Amino acid sequence: MSLTVVGSIAFDSVRTPFGERERMLGGSAVHFSLAASFFSEVHVVGPVGDDFGDEQLDVMRKRGVDTSDIERVEGGETFFWQGHYDYDLNTAHTDDTQLNVFGDFEPKLSDSSRSSDLLFLANIQPDLQRKVRAQCDGARFAALDSMNLWIDTARDSLLAAIGEVDCTIINDAEIRALTEESNLARAAAKVMEHGPKAVVAKQGEYGAALFTQSGFFALPGYPLEDVRDPTGAGDSFAGGFLGYLDSEGGEIDDGVLRRAMGYGTVLASFNVEEFGTERVARLDREEIDERFELLRSMTQFEAMPA
Amino acid sequence: MSLTVVGSIAFDSVRTPFGERERMLGGSAVHFSLAASFFSEVHVVGPVGDDFGDEQLDVMRKRGVDTSDIERVEGGETFFWQGHYDYDLNTAHTDDTQLNVFGDFEPKLSDSSRSSDLLFLANIQPDLQRKVRAQCDGARFAALDSMNLWIDTARDSLLAAIGEVDCTIINDAEIRALTEESNLARAAAKVMEHGPKAVVAKQGEYGAALFTQSGFFALPGYPLEDVRDPTGAGDSFAGGFLGYLDSEGGEIDDGVLRRAMGYGTVLASFNVEEFGTERVARLDREEIDERFELLRSMTQFEAMPA
Repeated sequence: MSLTVVGSIAFDSVRTPFGERERMLGGSAVHFSLAASFFSEVHVVGPVGDDFGDEQLDVMRKRGVDTSDIERVEGGETFFWQGHYDYDLNTAHTDDTQLNVFGDFEPKLSDSSRSSDLLFLANIQPDLQRKVRAQCDGARFAALDSMNLWIDTARDSLLAAIGEVDCTIINDAEIRALTEESNLARAAAKVMEHGPKAVVAKQGEYGAALFTQSGFFALPGYPLEDVRDPTGAGDSFAGGFLGYLDSEGGEIDDGVLRRAMGYGTVLASFNVEEFGTERVARLDREEIDERFELLRSMTQFEAMPA
Repeated sequence: MSLTVVGSIAFDSVRTPFGERERMLGGSAVHFSLAASFFSEVHVVGPVGDDFGDEQLDVMRKRGVDTSDIERVEGGETFFWQGHYDYDLNTAHTDDTQLNVFGDFEPKLSDSSRSSDLLFLANIQPDLQRKVRAQCDGARFAALDSMNLWIDTARDSLLAAIGEVDCTIINDAEIRALTEESNLARAAAKVMEHGPKAVVAKQGEYGAALFTQSGFFALPGYPLEDVRDPTGAGDSFAGGFLGYLDSEGGEIDDGVLRRAMGYGTVLASFNVEEFGTERVARLDREEIDERFELLRSMTQFEAMPA
């Protein structure tokens, strides 16, 4: 069982009402791979510059992530994002974005990355997503994320990419924008018409909803009294979700997808408890399973005895 | 088993992307009592003007609601609200509000209204809520709703009213505003410090979350492909919630509250399918129970066989 993720590897400078960090390790592929590492053998693909060192690689390596397809661009600088969150932690305000080596990124996958069972195309230009998908044509399940930028500037490419994966994992507002349909159930059905068997609508603090041909499932965000930095929550969700799917091995039916939603929710909840990768980097599987059971008990109609 | 609601009785003129209605029956006490009528003997208390006739009363009477405490103010006009919803059905835009007889409302409860087992104080001035609560001091469970207007203009009165009920049912943004606490779990805990054993955070299309001393429970909104008019959804939720609590009779523990959340969600979902009271007025209990079971199956980790 193995899982490949292609996406950004970044330095993030983030300020929230609860503190700030300068140039900490971030990026969609990083958050994803750390979350997925609790379930699966993860190969991470993405570019970095000369400023990216062993200190950063070790965060992933310590979690057993295969970093050999992280491409170091000589003379380049790593993707950099600076942003802040105000009182409403749901909204990220971007203060600076420097694509750097990410601007000319052409994914090159080794044989081991290409032959993974599962594939996650994190939020990158949809034509690149399609190129990676074509290289990993043996993956039994592929999912992608995207964002408003690509909906606005590369809509046809994005729809083509969506048509080549099994699952789309994007924010609910993006599902609405992509389909020009305000009703989420109808919007998700429209996305499925393009090919995917499953659509996951990420809803920030409200959790996530799963639409499949046969049904609907939704989970609230795990209720936390301390949320410090939401950066990477969506990618951690996707990492827990796809990592669990990979670990199950068998057919990916609605029951497996529902439990994967639970693991996605749990990984996202740990991610936001501290800044960047701090919390997930020192997480263990026991903590994950414990919170999964708590989440399950919080969503059952029959309350557990107190 | 009986349930008293005090709140507005109104004419609503509403426009949404799916149509419009002029001066249709509305108001918090009306939406609440219709929803609760499937579970409980409901007494509705509120003022109307000369323009309110048998046609409107009959909508409630046909559902078995006791309308004898609806006070007709001679020479007065019924509360009137005009508003519209755009593409985003979550946001109501108010175009006109005429308090009319509601401006001088002094609730007068008959013996039967006063002796109900349960009490719901819909969104009215908090000092009025307190007067009604004092008249119904035998109710074994009381809940209230409120709004930003009272948080801004009558905060101390509202906190006193909250201290005198068992459950607060308000929008999540209002819980945050009331407590000046951005984290919802912390904000709900702060509300409970004032007295209530339970706090329900209404979250629009995202559903609702329940906070109690012993736990957390949340349900998504029921996924509908056709939402025509969200007006009254929150009051229909409260009606299903409290109606079910009343019908259960026994101790109101977490298990009963969770199922009540389910019935609240179901009644709110029917309410928004058509304009005003149109859908709930012709609903039957079988439809409610059927949707309740569907909602339960949509929130279980184990998927039903397709």
